[in-house]
Amino acid sequence: MKVSVIGGGSWATAIVKILSENSRINIRWWMRNADAVEHIRKLHHNPKYLSSVEFHPSKVKAYHKIKDAVKGSEIIILAVPAAFLAESLNDLSLKHFENKAVISAIKGMIPETHQLVTDFIKEKYQVPLERQAAIAGPCHAEEVAFEKNSYLTIASPDISLAENFADLMNCRYVRTSAISDLYGVEYTAVMKNIVALACGITHGLGAGDNFQAVMVSNAMLEIKRLLSAVAPAERELNASAYLGDLLVTAYSQFSRNRSFGNMIGRGYSVKTAQLEMNMIAEGYYAVKSIAKLNEQWQIDMPITRFAHAVLYEKNSLKKEFNSLKNSLF
Amino acid sequence: MKVSVIGGGSWATAIVKILSENSRINIRWWMRNADAVEHIRKLHHNPKYLSSVEFHPSKVKAYHKIKDAVKGSEIIILAVPAAFLAESLNDLSLKHFENKAVISAIKGMIPETHQLVTDFIKEKYQVPLERQAAIAGPCHAEEVAFEKNSYLTIASPDISLAENFADLMNCRYVRTSAISDLYGVEYTAVMKNIVALACGITHGLGAGDNFQAVMVSNAMLEIKRLLSAVAPAERELNASAYLGDLLVTAYSQFSRNRSFGNMIGRGYSVKTAQLEMNMIAEGYYAVKSIAKLNEQWQIDMPITRFAHAVLYEKNSLKKEFNSLKNSLF
Repeated sequence: MKVSVIGGGSWATAIVKILSENSRINIRWWMRNADAVEHIRKLHHNPKYLSSVEFHPSKVKAYHKIKDAVKGSEIIILAVPAAFLAESLNDLSLKHFENKAVISAIKGMIPETHQLVTDFIKEKYQVPLERQAAIAGPCHAEEVAFEKNSYLTIASPDISLAENFADLMNCRYVRTSAISDLYGVEYTAVMKNIVALACGITHGLGAGDNFQAVMVSNAMLEIKRLLSAVAPAERELNASAYLGDLLVTAYSQFSRNRSFGNMIGRGYSVKTAQLEMNMIAEGYYAVKSIAKLNEQWQIDMPITRFAHAVLYEKNSLKKEFNSLKNSLF
Repeated sequence: MKVSVIGGGSWATAIVKILSENSRINIRWWMRNADAVEHIRKLHHNPKYLSSVEFHPSKVKAYHKIKDAVKGSEIIILAVPAAFLAESLNDLSLKHFENKAVISAIKGMIPETHQLVTDFIKEKYQVPLERQAAIAGPCHAEEVAFEKNSYLTIASPDISLAENFADLMNCRYVRTSAISDLYGVEYTAVMKNIVALACGITHGLGAGDNFQAVMVSNAMLEIKRLLSAVAPAERELNASAYLGDLLVTAYSQFSRNRSFGNMIGRGYSVKTAQLEMNMIAEGYYAVKSIAKLNEQWQIDMPITRFAHAVLYEKNSLKKEFNSLKNSLF
């Protein structure tokens, strides 16, 4: 079975490692960086991410042209930042997605259209949601490299697609399960980056662990309100696909979103924080998309509102922090 | 208004600090250690805990005899470890509790009887639950000393008692709210120490942040099953009184329960870990009580079962860890 993985970052690399544990799978791995492709072909390691992990060339083939990478595969896994997705897929057309399952490992929304990734793929490449799934669960890529015990949940409206793909990803150090709540885990993944960013801001402003715990519990209530409004369904929000995913990001010292927020909280401008980090945190775009969509939804979202006011409205940090403190409990 | 605080540890000291912000309150503070009482009287600091905090003698009077400490007060706050509660109150009789409200700040069960603190006070001192409350919420005492923003929830079946006491504790850096779910927050507080201890064990065994997030989300499911069985009620388990309280303990590097568990996970015996820490973690007793009670309840509690097997049944760590991994998702 051939599986294509689109993206060369740490999460894409971790997914390739997990899939390469499965003897039934051959992986066709696309990444933008031509040097990295050459490095993987010759030296069997991704030079930029999780570089200790070895990829056997009989299992994993790296490609620089995306059309080559998706050729003949049954499953396409998307693992680039949401902001670069449209551009990354630019060379592909409808026919490249025909009869293939598409699995999103992306935790973000398309910035230009404020769409979920699966909605974008459905609209642009006419892949129905029943042929799509999302990978959720608390999983730092770095811990996959060290084969630390991890759990993933695959969500698809077609539960048998979710179960089959969950089976493929199950391995010695990764346990997987399947649920049908695609939108629920996608929105939660978008929100967790916003929450991590907001936690970073408050940490930068001097808040401690007590406040962090209050932020995360109020974030769960915010996510609950969001999901009941935009994707109503019976779901167990405390399962690891939702709460666990939020926790691993919001409590991570290594989260890019949290670090970015922390710099903002300490008084850096957005520009300076971006330059300093040499990248843009997913949460920065997610805040804008969710705040924009919430102009129609009108859901009570104090944490998203706080992040939006600080990042995009250039409001006084201190005033916004006070207003946030008054809306938590 | 006179309020008695029973206990000289860090959480008792933080509560005295919070209450002493309120100009309407005079505090009568009991602690076992006679030297510490003298120190507070003469030098206005607790020498052993949060020693940077100053207590003004016109607001806070320290006592070595518990009968003196409760004399004339309207509220008694209990803030000793559950294991020492019965002994600490030994000099008191029914009449000392007459017409007084009793507020438990204790996160544990009475080890001998496996009772919640409020049930013990009800049975032994005939204080009905309607005159009792519990203090919940994510709150490291150390952060109170630094006046970091914190949130507390007061729970009592008499909601006006909870609201009045919440008002008394509200101050510049502590926001309070009131709920009626006394048993819910008491059981959650017991469970959070078990969870922190179990997280410590798995961390000691080499589990990382991914696994920790899965532990905590599965712990929420375990708490949910427990509460639906033993204290069924409508409640928002993601509120800071429940989830927040669990998070601040399970994610704390300073949690005694987590540290204790960590030593067990690294192969120390219970005895050695206790000697090394010079104290016994509350969670150690809580595991025994909840496991004992669960012989009747028969609730699916894999995390509690794991901790019990490791601590009391001396089962193989590795075998129990594998069985735990298989029951999480």
